[in-house]
Amino acid sequence: MNAVAKPSTTRLFLADMADLACGCAFLGSGGGGDPQASLTELQVLAGDGGSVELLDARSLADDALVTPCGWIGAPTVSAEKLPSGEEALLGLRRLESLLGRPATAVCPIEIGGSNGLAAVLLALRARLPLVDCDGMGRAFPESQMVIFNVRGLKACPAVLTDDKGNCVVIEAADNVAEERIARALSVTLGGTCHLMEYPLSGRQVRATALHGTVSDALAIGRAMRLGREAHGDPFEALFAALRASRQFSSAGVLFEGKIVDIRRETKDGFSLGRAVIEAFGGGQRLEVDFKNENLVARIGNEVRAMVPDLITIVDRETADTIVTERLRYGQRVKVVGACAPAALREQGALAVLGPAAFGFDMPYRGIAELNGWT
Amino acid sequence: MNAVAKPSTTRLFLADMADLACGCAFLGSGGGGDPQASLTELQVLAGDGGSVELLDARSLADDALVTPCGWIGAPTVSAEKLPSGEEALLGLRRLESLLGRPATAVCPIEIGGSNGLAAVLLALRARLPLVDCDGMGRAFPESQMVIFNVRGLKACPAVLTDDKGNCVVIEAADNVAEERIARALSVTLGGTCHLMEYPLSGRQVRATALHGTVSDALAIGRAMRLGREAHGDPFEALFAALRASRQFSSAGVLFEGKIVDIRRETKDGFSLGRAVIEAFGGGQRLEVDFKNENLVARIGNEVRAMVPDLITIVDRETADTIVTERLRYGQRVKVVGACAPAALREQGALAVLGPAAFGFDMPYRGIAELNGWT
Repeated sequence: MNAVAKPSTTRLFLADMADLACGCAFLGSGGGGDPQASLTELQVLAGDGGSVELLDARSLADDALVTPCGWIGAPTVSAEKLPSGEEALLGLRRLESLLGRPATAVCPIEIGGSNGLAAVLLALRARLPLVDCDGMGRAFPESQMVIFNVRGLKACPAVLTDDKGNCVVIEAADNVAEERIARALSVTLGGTCHLMEYPLSGRQVRATALHGTVSDALAIGRAMRLGREAHGDPFEALFAALRASRQFSSAGVLFEGKIVDIRRETKDGFSLGRAVIEAFGGGQRLEVDFKNENLVARIGNEVRAMVPDLITIVDRETADTIVTERLRYGQRVKVVGACAPAALREQGALAVLGPAAFGFDMPYRGIAELNGWT
Repeated sequence: MNAVAKPSTTRLFLADMADLACGCAFLGSGGGGDPQASLTELQVLAGDGGSVELLDARSLADDALVTPCGWIGAPTVSAEKLPSGEEALLGLRRLESLLGRPATAVCPIEIGGSNGLAAVLLALRARLPLVDCDGMGRAFPESQMVIFNVRGLKACPAVLTDDKGNCVVIEAADNVAEERIARALSVTLGGTCHLMEYPLSGRQVRATALHGTVSDALAIGRAMRLGREAHGDPFEALFAALRASRQFSSAGVLFEGKIVDIRRETKDGFSLGRAVIEAFGGGQRLEVDFKNENLVARIGNEVRAMVPDLITIVDRETADTIVTERLRYGQRVKVVGACAPAALREQGALAVLGPAAFGFDMPYRGIAELNGWT
């Protein structure tokens, strides 16, 4: 008997959103924007008990139209520039008119950071289901760093919208040009814009997306909260949730200490910088380089984790994620590492989103191997 | 008896193109790009005796669709970056599909510089008539500095295309945002792009465009050539042609001398700078400030001409226009001024394209008054 798991459909409720935000923040690997503002927006919008249907990707019809969405720009800007609230729906409607048909469902282009919640917001506004998947299982700084691009799917037509009602339809020659165009526009239009890109058929979502990542994020956030409530230690619960998740596996604490140096600049539409964390009592230092997201963590010349594996700096006690734009001198932190989804660790994917894609002259080595995790 | 002039239709032939290029260069007021590259492209494209129908704007039906076109970017870049030749037709076809109907005719967004010829090229490629008009009677550096914007017409949808096949549809909230978006894209996409903007009905063209400017440019170029051939002096012929034109009137030499200093930078998508011309034998100096186009000419504190009046620096002997990106130390030049079309000198227009719009803290004063021309 070959029992096939029946695709299930569940609902996301407002009560889930704080947990989801917490999980998305962790999966953001320091980037994707702080979900707090999106959480507030969600609480206002869904205040009367609204909920969103969460659709298993396997239940999508071949010809369904799924529209991934998210925000592009420097998180340092997003933290201070409020959206009008109209951007996403304007973009969705324009994309639908370009494609000549209505969307079946939306999904986050990236589950990490505020973009995980941005898709829930759009699903609520458009009264559409949310597909339980995303394009990277974390957050990445550039638009082409997404599994859909790795698998040869097209980013365009893409629709970029801003808080002033400006709308730009991008029909780029390739997916890297789409990123360059969208990035330049995000800088010109105030540092952050909403972007609908990689419109996909149901068949394409089934075959390429990272499945279950909305559920994974929710489970991670929930486990951390329950761990805190039960015995004040969210870390064991976090690691257990990662091991039990669909896309993630081994995880652990890479380092613990105090932030003693933080350099940061907002350049070309990105937040670039480096955080230095010193072990309590002095001695060892861990350096974390970031470009919106944390990319490489090393102690001296010894690399302890590198992209696409997740590196998330969290509060030492609460395990709350500290996104890169909120890193400050003196914070007591743990640096948590987690093994990236398998699809991101294949050779073809590493060329697009591995260390070399960020200019690091080192071959990818997995976080489990680097830290002797079994 | 109220005889109404019958709208006439004529044809532009390849043999006219060198004259047209010469006239467009003069009307560019130092900007709009050197027409030489467009002239070469035209000669290749129309080499087998092709011609373009030149349509009097008064003959347009109310519901005709006229699509102004041109290139956006720094002329310093255009001088070195060759087009693929596909940009304009790709943009026109995309605009037609957006509007759901084919274009009736094209026209130059600006007659000055290479953009006068760019419209002829597109008319040839698309086998469409060219309307004998443009949006400014000269060249201006920014997209919103056009009579169509002054009269409240919309720039969008605008379609920007580049030599790599990238296509971007701009649906901006207003015409200034359209300029900002297109400008940022032109910088990102290599410094210069083709732009279809201000799609107009026949009625709108009849009511707002500067009529007869293609014919004016052709007549100006032809007069200069005939003057040179007849008695080696193109200047008297140039001034006579301007006086006889539909849009221009008084004109004269503002200064004569040698370029002794030229400062220039390519910044934010513009060519910015200042040329200093010293009278032969020393003494007086004329300074010309430019932003793609020449904007203000002054001797010490005494202003001799200001935008929107035309200021064109030409070779002292041949009267060939020297566009701002070709100004060099040591060139022997005359600085020619000409009164701008009346539509540009109205109060509403001056707010958009007069000296204050370029940051000059001075009220507009006409060139005829400043120089005591009758």
